[in-house]
Amino acid sequence: MLPDVQFINRPQLIDMTWGHPDPALLPAEAMQQAATTALADGGATALPYGAEQGPGRLIELLCAKMARAEGSAPDPLRVAITGGISQAIDHLCTLLTRPGDIALVEAPTYHLAMRIMVDRGLRLIPVAADDEGVRLDALEETLAMLAARGERPTLLYTIPTFSNPAGATMGLKRRIALTELALAHHFTILEDDAYRDIWFENPPPPTIAALNQEAPVVRLGSFAKCLAPGLRLGWIVAPPAIIEAWRLSGLLDSGGGVNHFTACVVAELLATGELDRLGERLRSAYRIRRDTLVSALQEHLPPGASVASIAGGFFAWVKAPEGIDTVALLPRAEAAGLGYIPGARFFAGGGGNQYLRLSFSRVTLEQLRAGAQLLGKLFV
Amino acid sequence: MLPDVQFINRPQLIDMTWGHPDPALLPAEAMQQAATTALADGGATALPYGAEQGPGRLIELLCAKMARAEGSAPDPLRVAITGGISQAIDHLCTLLTRPGDIALVEAPTYHLAMRIMVDRGLRLIPVAADDEGVRLDALEETLAMLAARGERPTLLYTIPTFSNPAGATMGLKRRIALTELALAHHFTILEDDAYRDIWFENPPPPTIAALNQEAPVVRLGSFAKCLAPGLRLGWIVAPPAIIEAWRLSGLLDSGGGVNHFTACVVAELLATGELDRLGERLRSAYRIRRDTLVSALQEHLPPGASVASIAGGFFAWVKAPEGIDTVALLPRAEAAGLGYIPGARFFAGGGGNQYLRLSFSRVTLEQLRAGAQLLGKLFV
Repeated sequence: MLPDVQFINRPQLIDMTWGHPDPALLPAEAMQQAATTALADGGATALPYGAEQGPGRLIELLCAKMARAEGSAPDPLRVAITGGISQAIDHLCTLLTRPGDIALVEAPTYHLAMRIMVDRGLRLIPVAADDEGVRLDALEETLAMLAARGERPTLLYTIPTFSNPAGATMGLKRRIALTELALAHHFTILEDDAYRDIWFENPPPPTIAALNQEAPVVRLGSFAKCLAPGLRLGWIVAPPAIIEAWRLSGLLDSGGGVNHFTACVVAELLATGELDRLGERLRSAYRIRRDTLVSALQEHLPPGASVASIAGGFFAWVKAPEGIDTVALLPRAEAAGLGYIPGARFFAGGGGNQYLRLSFSRVTLEQLRAGAQLLGKLFV
Repeated sequence: MLPDVQFINRPQLIDMTWGHPDPALLPAEAMQQAATTALADGGATALPYGAEQGPGRLIELLCAKMARAEGSAPDPLRVAITGGISQAIDHLCTLLTRPGDIALVEAPTYHLAMRIMVDRGLRLIPVAADDEGVRLDALEETLAMLAARGERPTLLYTIPTFSNPAGATMGLKRRIALTELALAHHFTILEDDAYRDIWFENPPPPTIAALNQEAPVVRLGSFAKCLAPGLRLGWIVAPPAIIEAWRLSGLLDSGGGVNHFTACVVAELLATGELDRLGERLRSAYRIRRDTLVSALQEHLPPGASVASIAGGFFAWVKAPEGIDTVALLPRAEAAGLGYIPGARFFAGGGGNQYLRLSFSRVTLEQLRAGAQLLGKLFV
């Protein structure tokens, strides 16, 4: 039979390739209860075609949740429900781009988001990043280089908060500067905000989208990491013109809101406060894994290797000692029992061969310790 | 507050514009039970990222259902789960087309499918249809006209079974001829099969996709009409190369299977046999409406007006008497208390002003009788 889920079990490995939530942390009972409640009106709300923007009830509860967690919330008219961040990027390509358009991406960035944009014919141009994500000097240089040949980017895709793969978080000042560059150069920022709720010491800075109501920024929110990825549910916060284009697009006009039934179920889960409690549980569980992995890496990594600091999210971004190529190392690592993703996968323009990504979200504490030890041995 | 559902209640009207299932026929209790069952394993199947092709369990149950209802079923390797027909058309545009490509569409055809393709930059060319859908002579003429200027269509979008808006069904011979034209001229047929289960006297002919395993045909299946549209769940049956491209696309690689949670819930509903029983109930309920509307129209339509025969689906396709323009008539109809969609909306290349579409799926028997009477008066 064909598989039900995406995860492929490789029991011979400590498999730190998957950026997936731990299945043990998925709230099945709360979802059962929420589904029962969502259908208690005989299906009158959850089963017909949904409103194009998403169910008003979910949007209202989501804004209230953002107000609690972030201290402020967008106007509900700036919010639309999506089928997850991947679907949102894909549909925003329909609304905002044409094949041949340019999308700037951090180097490194989430490799599979790049695949979605490449499928839509976009030309990806990498912009160097540091421990705060995309570098302003590199961005300005790229914009100038493009302007000199009569071009400009249509999109800048960035993960400014607990980035995938580097775990980098952009400070407030750089976030504000980005909005100004977007306004000045007429590109739209796609702000992938998937990991916001998975913070370990302090909540992250405000979203870029919240910092300037006039700037062309689309915040891509998701229930994948803070609730369950199989739901394929997320949201965007965007300028009214983009919400309007989303709402009035042929796809939504024809089918109504994407993923409406699931949206109604998740609304009932939000209404119970369960999402807030789950957030606490997730932060605790993943914080322990982060701590375990980081101290094991510090113990076992040889001189010349290092791990970036991890303030939230699912990933450790490891730099190998000089002279080690993580692409070339991978077969040996897998033979020794460790799975990781080589850094090169995350760079649009090549490079990154000295880096690798370890996901700590879907492995046990024992595996984290053993994995760090294995990596240390592979590095010497 | 923003609305939850797409339907807009206009209580002053007998509103026959909406091609929506009757909310009273949506199986809320069965869905509650299915959701509880789907999550009974602690969420291990329904809540993680789903398999890109869709849950294997749903594909297997769906193939078994097709075997029961249609006498044969595709190989599971030719099936993928979608987020409904609209999402499937949209994603197939990513996989198979580029802006500027040509899509042939029946005239008339489903107006909102045209919007999805226009959003993707396709050029739509209408092909005349008769009471069996797209006409072969008109299609061959269009192919020759295109070939003469060095072009060919990438897609042919057709609704060969209980079409929207005309209620037309293509016979077996024409279906086979279409597969041969697609092979000879290298275009892909998108076979919108949304209404297959809503037949009134006899099950429809086999799908085009089932008639020739070598031909480039994608059957677009949906749970919207035979279960509930808010689920945003459907499937495609397609040649292995298209399933492979679907499965390996960036969108699916990143997010896993679309709408995975809902897919797992619907799998449990299928496992109980409820979808077969529901099919019987839907056919009975909509058959009575069809009968009521058709006999009321036969009673009230003036000479020169007519209604196409309706063997399945949700729609009556009415021809007004000579000299009546249904676009111009609409304000007067709404003032008198009747809502319909003017025929012109369904023609890519203009025309159709003597036609209108009445949906009988979401109004009462009393409203069907009163609506037909009103229309008769408006036509004289």
